[in-house]
Amino acid sequence: MTQSTRTPIPDPDAPSDDRSFSHVLVQDFQAVRRTSLALCSPLEPEDFVIQSMADASPAKWHLAHTTWFFEVMVLAPALAIGPLRPGWHVLFNSYYEALGARHPRPRRGLVTRPALDEVLAYRQEVEGRVLELLASKTATPRTLEMLELGLNHEQQHQELLVTDLKHLLFQNPLKPAWRTLPEAGSTAAEPLQWIEWPAAGTVEIGHQGDGFAYDNEGPRHRQWLEPFALATRPVSQGEFLAFIEDGGYREPRLWLSDGWDAVQREGWEAPLYWTCDGGCWRQFTVAGMRDIDPAEPACHLSHYEADAYARWAGARLPTEAEWETLASKHFGAAADADRLQPSPSGNWGEVWEWTASAYAPYPGFRAAPGAEGEYNGKFMSGQMVLRGGSCASPPGHVRPTYRNFFPPSARWQFAGLRLAR
Amino acid sequence: MTQSTRTPIPDPDAPSDDRSFSHVLVQDFQAVRRTSLALCSPLEPEDFVIQSMADASPAKWHLAHTTWFFEVMVLAPALAIGPLRPGWHVLFNSYYEALGARHPRPRRGLVTRPALDEVLAYRQEVEGRVLELLASKTATPRTLEMLELGLNHEQQHQELLVTDLKHLLFQNPLKPAWRTLPEAGSTAAEPLQWIEWPAAGTVEIGHQGDGFAYDNEGPRHRQWLEPFALATRPVSQGEFLAFIEDGGYREPRLWLSDGWDAVQREGWEAPLYWTCDGGCWRQFTVAGMRDIDPAEPACHLSHYEADAYARWAGARLPTEAEWETLASKHFGAAADADRLQPSPSGNWGEVWEWTASAYAPYPGFRAAPGAEGEYNGKFMSGQMVLRGGSCASPPGHVRPTYRNFFPPSARWQFAGLRLAR
Amino acid sequence: MTQSTRTPIPDPDAPSDDRSFSHVLVQDFQAVRRTSLALCSPLEPEDFVIQSMADASPAKWHLAHTTWFFEVMVLAPALAIGPLRPGWHVLFNSYYEALGARHPRPRRGLVTRPALDEVLAYRQEVEGRVLELLASKTATPRTLEMLELGLNHEQQHQELLVTDLKHLLFQNPLKPAWRTLPEAGSTAAEPLQWIEWPAAGTVEIGHQGDGFAYDNEGPRHRQWLEPFALATRPVSQGEFLAFIEDGGYREPRLWLSDGWDAVQREGWEAPLYWTCDGGCWRQFTVAGMRDIDPAEPACHLSHYEADAYARWAGARLPTEAEWETLASKHFGAAADADRLQPSPSGNWGEVWEWTASAYAPYPGFRAAPGAEGEYNGKFMSGQMVLRGGSCASPPGHVRPTYRNFFPPSARWQFAGLRLAR
Amino acid sequence: MTQSTRTPIPDPDAPSDDRSFSHVLVQDFQAVRRTSLALCSPLEPEDFVIQSMADASPAKWHLAHTTWFFEVMVLAPALAIGPLRPGWHVLFNSYYEALGARHPRPRRGLVTRPALDEVLAYRQEVEGRVLELLASKTATPRTLEMLELGLNHEQQHQELLVTDLKHLLFQNPLKPAWRTLPEAGSTAAEPLQWIEWPAAGTVEIGHQGDGFAYDNEGPRHRQWLEPFALATRPVSQGEFLAFIEDGGYREPRLWLSDGWDAVQREGWEAPLYWTCDGGCWRQFTVAGMRDIDPAEPACHLSHYEADAYARWAGARLPTEAEWETLASKHFGAAADADRLQPSPSGNWGEVWEWTASAYAPYPGFRAAPGAEGEYNGKFMSGQMVLRGGSCASPPGHVRPTYRNFFPPSARWQFAGLRLAR
Repeated sequence: MTQSTRTPIPDPDAPSDDRSFSHVLVQDFQAVRRTSLALCSPLEPEDFVIQSMADASPAKWHLAHTTWFFEVMVLAPALAIGPLRPGWHVLFNSYYEALGARHPRPRRGLVTRPALDEVLAYRQEVEGRVLELLASKTATPRTLEMLELGLNHEQQHQELLVTDLKHLLFQNPLKPAWRTLPEAGSTAAEPLQWIEWPAAGTVEIGHQGDGFAYDNEGPRHRQWLEPFALATRPVSQGEFLAFIEDGGYREPRLWLSDGWDAVQREGWEAPLYWTCDGGCWRQFTVAGMRDIDPAEPACHLSHYEADAYARWAGARLPTEAEWETLASKHFGAAADADRLQPSPSGNWGEVWEWTASAYAPYPGFRAAPGAEGEYNGKFMSGQMVLRGGSCASPPGHVRPTYRNFFPPSARWQFAGLRLAR
Repeated sequence: MTQSTRTPIPDPDAPSDDRSFSHVLVQDFQAVRRTSLALCSPLEPEDFVIQSMADASPAKWHLAHTTWFFEVMVLAPALAIGPLRPGWHVLFNSYYEALGARHPRPRRGLVTRPALDEVLAYRQEVEGRVLELLASKTATPRTLEMLELGLNHEQQHQELLVTDLKHLLFQNPLKPAWRTLPEAGSTAAEPLQWIEWPAAGTVEIGHQGDGFAYDNEGPRHRQWLEPFALATRPVSQGEFLAFIEDGGYREPRLWLSDGWDAVQREGWEAPLYWTCDGGCWRQFTVAGMRDIDPAEPACHLSHYEADAYARWAGARLPTEAEWETLASKHFGAAADADRLQPSPSGNWGEVWEWTASAYAPYPGFRAAPGAEGEYNGKFMSGQMVLRGGSCASPPGHVRPTYRNFFPPSARWQFAGLRLAR
Repeated sequence: MTQSTRTPIPDPDAPSDDRSFSHVLVQDFQAVRRTSLALCSPLEPEDFVIQSMADASPAKWHLAHTTWFFEVMVLAPALAIGPLRPGWHVLFNSYYEALGARHPRPRRGLVTRPALDEVLAYRQEVEGRVLELLASKTATPRTLEMLELGLNHEQQHQELLVTDLKHLLFQNPLKPAWRTLPEAGSTAAEPLQWIEWPAAGTVEIGHQGDGFAYDNEGPRHRQWLEPFALATRPVSQGEFLAFIEDGGYREPRLWLSDGWDAVQREGWEAPLYWTCDGGCWRQFTVAGMRDIDPAEPACHLSHYEADAYARWAGARLPTEAEWETLASKHFGAAADADRLQPSPSGNWGEVWEWTASAYAPYPGFRAAPGAEGEYNGKFMSGQMVLRGGSCASPPGHVRPTYRNFFPPSARWQFAGLRLAR
Repeated sequence: MTQSTRTPIPDPDAPSDDRSFSHVLVQDFQAVRRTSLALCSPLEPEDFVIQSMADASPAKWHLAHTTWFFEVMVLAPALAIGPLRPGWHVLFNSYYEALGARHPRPRRGLVTRPALDEVLAYRQEVEGRVLELLASKTATPRTLEMLELGLNHEQQHQELLVTDLKHLLFQNPLKPAWRTLPEAGSTAAEPLQWIEWPAAGTVEIGHQGDGFAYDNEGPRHRQWLEPFALATRPVSQGEFLAFIEDGGYREPRLWLSDGWDAVQREGWEAPLYWTCDGGCWRQFTVAGMRDIDPAEPACHLSHYEADAYARWAGARLPTEAEWETLASKHFGAAADADRLQPSPSGNWGEVWEWTASAYAPYPGFRAAPGAEGEYNGKFMSGQMVLRGGSCASPPGHVRPTYRNFFPPSARWQFAGLRLAR
């Protein structure tokens, strides 16, 4: 999964003597695991079990699946133990064909047992065993690498847990709040400016070096870029409102053909979670319904909406090579993490930004053998790359080389756009 | 809704002075309400919220809806009060067009809030108000009639609560148990014999008299019957197994055309909840998986399967007039209530019995005006009548005139068949 | 299939010596076969192959299937011959499980070959062989009985051919005409009056005697009727327009629950083939679009619409026993055949009349063994009985005992209603 | 649409004086129009009207639509005339939002009128008017450009006409032949060899120069390529058979996630049109069923199957830049056109070759304003690029810069693959 590891690692299966690394991992492990529970702390027990659409998963499933990942990827190979909970394997295997049968994804919301208490006990048991393993100093570099992957994996699920819950609670006519948010403002965003890339030439993109990265972020490689420019910030809600009011959702010539089909089939008239009560646009947030803040970045857009907006604005979406080239040099500080509503900070990392690039392997990419190789590679079809991270992304996931990906019709992520030209 | 009421009732809107009736109602009310909670007592909180198919409802919904029924049918007209929980009305109105908007039925399982605790508090508040009303001696006969309807309504939902939960838990690969059951036996059922109705002539069917009955049980009316015979007991699981082993599910000529379509489309090979592990048939019950008891009445059959079995056996399903005529005279004692698995008692009331009669109004039937009139009449299309009551039916619902009804493809009720010829 | 046969027939497999019967059959056979072609004569070749919905069949299929029926039901048993067109059997077997595999019904419109010319040649060959068989005087009563069934079968398909073509041509935005019709009038229908059946008592319904009847028209049997009345004529288009204008399609309380679901799911606002251009109602006919004639019987109604209209009018639909009892005694002359648009004649036989009776076997009904037994019996589920015959029904099919049947949502037949009370 | 035009064109709306160009166009026009009819000449009239799936169109529709394209793109602007066939516009507008309403694509197969004769008369009328226009010497360069586009457009529809008819006839259990083909051979293909591109560096791809090209073939631009190699020929049927026999369709780890979903959902076990009768693989061709020729290029593959095969073979699909770079320099002669079954010639142009590139705009691409701009650009989402041309491609369409595109699940085109590494 991880393409790079810490150097030097002479024998990946010999015990690791890198004590400081283990120590950091223990702290990271405990912090990540605590965060998952903290995200769930405001929930009612009833909120944990429902699956509001096939693309989403219940919160209880996220808590169990991320634990199962440590069990099968870290504990089982390191300790040569059988399943801790016989029968659960099929429930919490997400999509690893190499790991055997699995409960069909659209049926994750039909499973009431194990109850939440049992899942929490399972979490504790696995955590205890992982900490014992780390304390024993017998963990091999390979084990530590899988542990690091498991942490990043759980962090990805933390963002999904948030977006899945938001989608679920929106289905309720009562539109319940789940967290608090600061008041929304009502001023416009900063004026939009452009960062220019003036000369044609080759660039290098992709992950390099010692830090953690997913396999799909490499290999680092060269690409040819023609001159272009990127906007200094994502499109704001106020700007997107102008698109709506100009009839953007009713003009087929602004849309890709598949996008226009989606507009008509789904009856889209605004971003997901927006509603119009008597001419006044409001939106559902983790704190319930509230007025649109025109300065906030627009989000909960599909790729189709992002693309149509860009066409309407006389611009286009950037390629991921363009995005990464400027982000790594000119984007400055990323936004703060874990606010669950994008803010008008002007920083990057507020909303995922749809690119014009289909999700495909970089030149020379090879998936690892075994279950680990199923993590990213097999999804390289029918999806578009998003860059930048969002207000719901865990710290560390907001980095220039990170490649997020979703089908072009997906709207339940905190996804917006940045204009290119 | 109720076609008959206690005599004499000079003014349905004047205060009732029938003290003994009120007293019985208080006890009945408290007992019925307690039973709903008792049925739920072995459940985990997670079991209350999921809807496993469009025809089913979450347990929490049943608890709230039956309470809402008392609120809108009893309290609101009697006390002239507005909604106790603004916003909940749309969630817990099942299908009463006369009472305004309602959350779409297939989306009942997307509602996590109000949480179970809030629903239980709502139940207590409504119960308290109903008891106050009864204690005040100001309740009119009309109010008492609606209260009695509400009790029967809640009892109907108790049976649905059981069958919906059974369906939900079956979706779980772990096949969890929820109640205990006595061991299954392995002997055959009593030999099947016939009760003859020897002479052609008119009979009267339908409800008559003072006891409670739903509007669809009347008016009592005459029908012409030709000679016929009914079996002394329902078809047993052992007998149904012989049908399976004789290839009954693979022979189209045994089936109605719609039934054969269902067999092929759904891949039916046995009753719902039956599975075949290496030649050994087992079935899911409220106590989890267990072996088939050949002496138990076969159930969880669709009308199509009941009809095909009867054809295979050289017999047919009875009409509801035939069934009621013999049941009211010759069926003896009904089975005990609330066992949640049909037993080989030989009594009636173990499983609902599909009839050959489409659900239609009796001659002279008229639905009441208002919401009450939507209770039964508007469903008189596309459904078949079942008679007799099941192991999950509340006491009192097992009576000869009771008309249960489901679409011919429904299998999640405790429904079997009794042969006629 | 046919429950009654000509008397006396001592040995159904001995050669028939009933010369006059054979002679009539020859003439009938030639006339029926000519009529099928005459109905198609105004068509373009392209009109013969398309299937506009799963319930309909292409005209070419009707021509081939009715011929195949004579081949397998008459020629094959009588002459002990194999298939005349190997490979076609699977294409033109409609639903006879006893006769082997069949092309799936919804795929009848994906078959361009055999071409129409080949089908017409097949028709001629089968006709020649049937006429040879009749001329040979070797046909057994059983063969003649199957021949008579084949003729009635082809006549039923003639009506379907008309209604299927009408449905197909309506899909075309050009709304092409296919036949001519007299001008539509604009006066109202005769005032509606009532025929009373004053006394409760038993009646006999069902086929009896020597004439041809389908098996589902018998056995003749007794039923008990309470006093009732039927309208002297079907509901007119002008009357139905008043229902529309009174908001009938927007008031859920007028509808059966399944009917209201259909209204909302399908967006029904008027009968099939009606369109409203700027406040002016027009309808598609076999002669293209034309104004609504208020005096014509309303048709192209589903059972749900007929039922809702009756409720709106303070009446109800008749049972088939009520209908047959009055029709056989009081209905007078039937309408002329083959006009393809109902006329305001006031006669019966203009439009099929939905009844309140689900399609079910009469007491004592038994399907014949073999393919013949699949003709009617296996469809006795999920459908409603229609009585009376329509402007598209062949002569002879308009008789008091005839039981037509369609699912309650079907609208493409010439189906209206007559009020009862 | 066309990005390049003949030089120099001082005023696109002034009459063209380029007589030789016009003369060539007259001959091309006549030849292309004749070819469309010639492709249809072996058909029965019934073959012209059926639409076998939403992605396909009836042959009659292709004949009318390509004619309509000349009417609205050439005649209407040049002659300022209204519609030649009022009412047909909506039927034969394919997807041009700029040109108004259109009949829904999945309903093209429900239109029997205008009949084929009327469509042929329409073709003649439009052809006569176009030839008059060309003879008048008043056609502007803009008009001639649109005429050239119309010819290329009709040629694209010729290939679709072939693949749509093949798909339609395959639906028929009789598996009718429509053309003749030479006997299939039984020897293996030439040994597969590799063409190497040894050095990393920039290349230029995309259309350049005077010849016709679609707008999506440009602008010509630079890309960076790492060293790679392409196979000398497409994968053969014999090689693909080895993949099948090795269990390729049963091993999820060979497949993209979407591809494996398609395998399971659709039950794929072999390429489209392949059937296995008792261990012997046969395939449907325009000449009916015949044995698999192992030397022929494999085709009727989805992108998913091509990708899985490449992974199984330890290789990958080429990007379109890789493909075009080698094709333009090393591929030699293209295959002969119009054979309707790929041959083992070893030339390119036998089967379309799926690439690893999602269909996206080249850097600097801009769609033209108006209907012309809808030709290609709005489909740049959710599709994959195919290169090379097939046995059904018209001459001239087999060129190195041509970008064909289809959704990754499409199988009814003559699409195979060439390995890269």
